[in-house]
Amino acid sequence: MKRLLLIGIGAGDPGHLTLQAVKAIAAADVFFVVDKGEEKRDLTDLRHQFIKDHGRQPYRIVTAPDPERDRLTPAYAEAVEDWRERRATLYHEMIDEALGEGQTGAFLIWGDPGVYDSTLASLEMLPRTGFEIEVIPGISAMSALTARHRISLTRVARPVHLSTGRRLAEQGPTADDMVIMLDARHAFDGLDDFDIYWGAYLGTPDEILIAGPVAEAGPRIREARARARESKGWIMDTYLLRRR
Amino acid sequence: MKRLLLIGIGAGDPGHLTLQAVKAIAAADVFFVVDKGEEKRDLTDLRHQFIKDHGRQPYRIVTAPDPERDRLTPAYAEAVEDWRERRATLYHEMIDEALGEGQTGAFLIWGDPGVYDSTLASLEMLPRTGFEIEVIPGISAMSALTARHRISLTRVARPVHLSTGRRLAEQGPTADDMVIMLDARHAFDGLDDFDIYWGAYLGTPDEILIAGPVAEAGPRIREARARARESKGWIMDTYLLRRR
Ligand SMILES: C[S@@+](CC[C@H](N)C(=O)[O-])C[C@H]1O[C@@H](n2cnc3c(N)ncnc32)[C@H](O)[C@@H]1O
Ligand SMILES: C[S@@+](CC[C@H](N)C(=O)[O-])C[C@H]1O[C@@H](n2cnc3c(N)ncnc32)[C@H](O)[C@@H]1O
Repeated sequence: MKRLLLIGIGAGDPGHLTLQAVKAIAAADVFFVVDKGEEKRDLTDLRHQFIKDHGRQPYRIVTAPDPERDRLTPAYAEAVEDWRERRATLYHEMIDEALGEGQTGAFLIWGDPGVYDSTLASLEMLPRTGFEIEVIPGISAMSALTARHRISLTRVARPVHLSTGRRLAEQGPTADDMVIMLDARHAFDGLDDFDIYWGAYLGTPDEILIAGPVAEAGPRIREARARARESKGWIMDTYLLRRR
Repeated sequence: MKRLLLIGIGAGDPGHLTLQAVKAIAAADVFFVVDKGEEKRDLTDLRHQFIKDHGRQPYRIVTAPDPERDRLTPAYAEAVEDWRERRATLYHEMIDEALGEGQTGAFLIWGDPGVYDSTLASLEMLPRTGFEIEVIPGISAMSALTARHRISLTRVARPVHLSTGRRLAEQGPTADDMVIMLDARHAFDGLDDFDIYWGAYLGTPDEILIAGPVAEAGPRIREARARARESKGWIMDTYLLRRR
């Protein structure tokens, strides 16, 4: 049997790594790194740093290009589905080729492997051929966000909705407390009876935190976002909306 | 200034501890432990183990009894509010008395400090007198649950609702994907178009995992729950509901 570890590495701070993740990294014979292009170079660098810090020699690093994804289509779910299928094939081929019998492979997954990450779904898309999957949970951007703002994700006995910028833009708010990820369009605009707790590059040296009523903090977030995106070339941000 | 750390310690597995949490434990002069009575002795034991393993001498442990909470009232939110107020007073008194100028105090918080935990809200209830709060995120039961079942919390581009057993019983399902915590009453009963992924004592040697369609897995969960509760005296379980 081959073993495949999906290791959550936290949302940007090397201190987010769990003891379990450290152990798992040390147990891997092969690391699979998917190259996401220039734009997210920092994120790939952090993975390489973790491998260097916690990997146990001898290990190999297998890099694969991420299949192109059609980001402009309105058929978002279908585009992702198609992209996942191509990734699935790629992953299974990598595992077949690079991982020997009895060996352990690892993917280092940003945040928590269960939160808006497609690695697991990609792998499960095709029948597994001779490998077992193990998932190591990680600190997600939503835990990092609330910790840095020193707020609770949940209010007493109340629900929280985790959703995407796209959904929020389409449907409007569905709860008094929402965490929004993957928002490229300021879907919070106009939600003037909410407070917003926003964070970009959480846990990294570039971290930015802004909080306040949407009407007041919104424009500041827009500006900070545009400036950060311009200077770094990419942005990674998330926020909590809380009805006042 | 005094510093107060709210340290997420993960959901039961000592390997959930993050490097940041390990460092934070080592930085504390005083640990505040709230005694929750016989029933959750195992949880308190784990905290003491973490202090022993990662605390740096000299440190002190200050134990306080948890104020009684009226668990039978239908006015749930009010009862919690009142209990929090008494906790708030207790916490502030402990900090005033036990923590010297320039010292660091710590609460070890189960799971993630932002997920259905009242420590932060209790502390913020009264005006802070000379201490700063810092929150260290932790692996929550929901991350532990999905990792152990090797499933994703989220499906592509879809929302997830995090809620409580009480809410689910009152309102029924509000989304195709829901994580339910704090359920003492099998609120999943009758949700026959859902699959359930259930976990008890996640990350501990007593861990139990059950998954399947609600109609089929539900009765097995009820039985496992009753048996576990009987033999251990208390239960800690959570689940994800996913519409088929
Ligand atoms: C593909 S999802 C992956 C989420 C990840 N698995 C997790 O648990 O956080 C990427 C989104 O996560 C959020 N995100 C991840 N890391 C972040 C960070 N350090 N700061 C702010 N947002 C972050 C952003 O909303 C980003 O668009
Ligand atoms: C007061 S809440 C605290 C949640 C915690 N802060 C977290 O992040 O997981 C307690 C509830 O969390 C869930 N829970 C916490 N740890 C768990 C574990 N190891 N296994 C199963 N459920 C757990 C149960 O639903 C329990 O009723």
